[in-house]
Amino acid sequence: MRYEHSFLKMLCGVLRLIGTPHSGYAGELDHIKLAASVELMHTATLLHDDVVDGQAHRRGKKTARMIWGNQASVLVGDFLLGRAFKMMVECGSLRALEILSQAASVIAEGEVLQLASTARDPNATYEADYLRIIESKTAELFAAAAELGAVVTKRPQKEAEALRSYGMNLGIAFQIVDDALDYAGSSDALGKDKGQDFKEGKITLPVILAFRRGSEDERAFWTRTLHKGDQQEGDLQLAVDLIASHNATEDTIEAARQYADLAIKALDVFADGPIKKALVDVCNFAVHRSH
Amino acid sequence: MRYEHSFLKMLCGVLRLIGTPHSGYAGELDHIKLAASVELMHTATLLHDDVVDGQAHRRGKKTARMIWGNQASVLVGDFLLGRAFKMMVECGSLRALEILSQAASVIAEGEVLQLASTARDPNATYEADYLRIIESKTAELFAAAAELGAVVTKRPQKEAEALRSYGMNLGIAFQIVDDALDYAGSSDALGKDKGQDFKEGKITLPVILAFRRGSEDERAFWTRTLHKGDQQEGDLQLAVDLIASHNATEDTIEAARQYADLAIKALDVFADGPIKKALVDVCNFAVHRSH
Repeated sequence: MRYEHSFLKMLCGVLRLIGTPHSGYAGELDHIKLAASVELMHTATLLHDDVVDGQAHRRGKKTARMIWGNQASVLVGDFLLGRAFKMMVECGSLRALEILSQAASVIAEGEVLQLASTARDPNATYEADYLRIIESKTAELFAAAAELGAVVTKRPQKEAEALRSYGMNLGIAFQIVDDALDYAGSSDALGKDKGQDFKEGKITLPVILAFRRGSEDERAFWTRTLHKGDQQEGDLQLAVDLIASHNATEDTIEAARQYADLAIKALDVFADGPIKKALVDVCNFAVHRSH
Repeated sequence: MRYEHSFLKMLCGVLRLIGTPHSGYAGELDHIKLAASVELMHTATLLHDDVVDGQAHRRGKKTARMIWGNQASVLVGDFLLGRAFKMMVECGSLRALEILSQAASVIAEGEVLQLASTARDPNATYEADYLRIIESKTAELFAAAAELGAVVTKRPQKEAEALRSYGMNLGIAFQIVDDALDYAGSSDALGKDKGQDFKEGKITLPVILAFRRGSEDERAFWTRTLHKGDQQEGDLQLAVDLIASHNATEDTIEAARQYADLAIKALDVFADGPIKKALVDVCNFAVHRSH
């Protein structure tokens, strides 16, 4: 299940389909260059994230840092960012550059936010904080990629906004499911080490729900393991059990379902057809990969 | 002696002086935004470099990674890159974006090149390789910053090329002196740990000259310490002594002097006056800070 990578590719491909047949689109390679730029930006953030999080596995394989080291991962990430930047500029669309530079800023800000919020008191963490982090670290790039499809093909503003909303809500749904799987999925399906968020003290939606519904003892457990970072043998299994006992996984997936529905709803401005159906299928896939 | 930082600032300031009084320059804040972007890009590369090199000190102070850790340094570096990118795009000059995206690519490529060339056989390392690395990792940003001064103020192509040449040659001179000081300067004057290049196995001009002029035993020493990375107590002092005994420091500074002269020569297209004099002074300062 190497869904993450092929997922973004699928999105770019689908947008290309929806964009190119109409309009006064001139630059034949621009949509490909922009899609490639988004991929490179995405890959660069993954390389850096794995260094920052000390990840050993991603998509079921060793991370680059385990093979070539942290140094190469930082520098090659920077190299990919440089190349992405160069390719974007070659397209010559200032509007596209505005969208992508905005996305780059928001994403980097989200990463810093997340680092600052790690090991925070679960008691003081609300869904709003959580959503702000996943919007910036994940959904913003989906939104930018989707909006770009409308920008390079010079579609009306209404369609650009619809596609941006589609990408944003799909990205949120995607990340929420990812966070649910970190506790409820198998490492094989997840493609990375299960329980990674727990080890890193990240406060994600399943934890927020389990904390809110938990007893005093359970809350003390979450505070000790995530806020104070004091984790012992068996704690991950207990976390998994607590989340299961409060139906926190199901409700997390249900939250993702709501965002996926918002993404589908955003497509109302487009006519029905096989392309729209493919975009809808992506939303359903993002939620159902959890089952 | 916090020359590195104030140095780039000085350059941007001087370029602003040389550019703004003439021309049909409209965007009042553009040169400031672009200069700030260059500073942010530069700072981001320093944050990442210190992580990659494991630096403990820079400009005589603890590095960010020693205070806030490698994680924050990687992410905040990315954040500064994102902000720089956003600010550049706000200026709306595609030509400026071309120059800066080209610089970003070349700089990142240079960093990767340097990582790959570290701990290489000194016997197989020529000045051309060394120059290629310092051109990309250091001089390219000087060249871009200088050229931008002409671009935002809409000066003729001839002046843009002259300023690019000025920046490139000045950047090379600056880096060569930096590399000489790593062996010959005091840690105080250098503002970072002396002998850092030696510890990292970087093959710089003083080493290339000392190797070329050295006996068989001396070459074996350089191969052991830099190529094989086998360094023992007292090796750094021996390296410093070998470089001194072959006049490698003086000849390295002399090479820097030649590039500084090329930078000064590039300014021939501009009329004499206090601004040109300031630009010339920067070149002389870059070389003389070694004495």
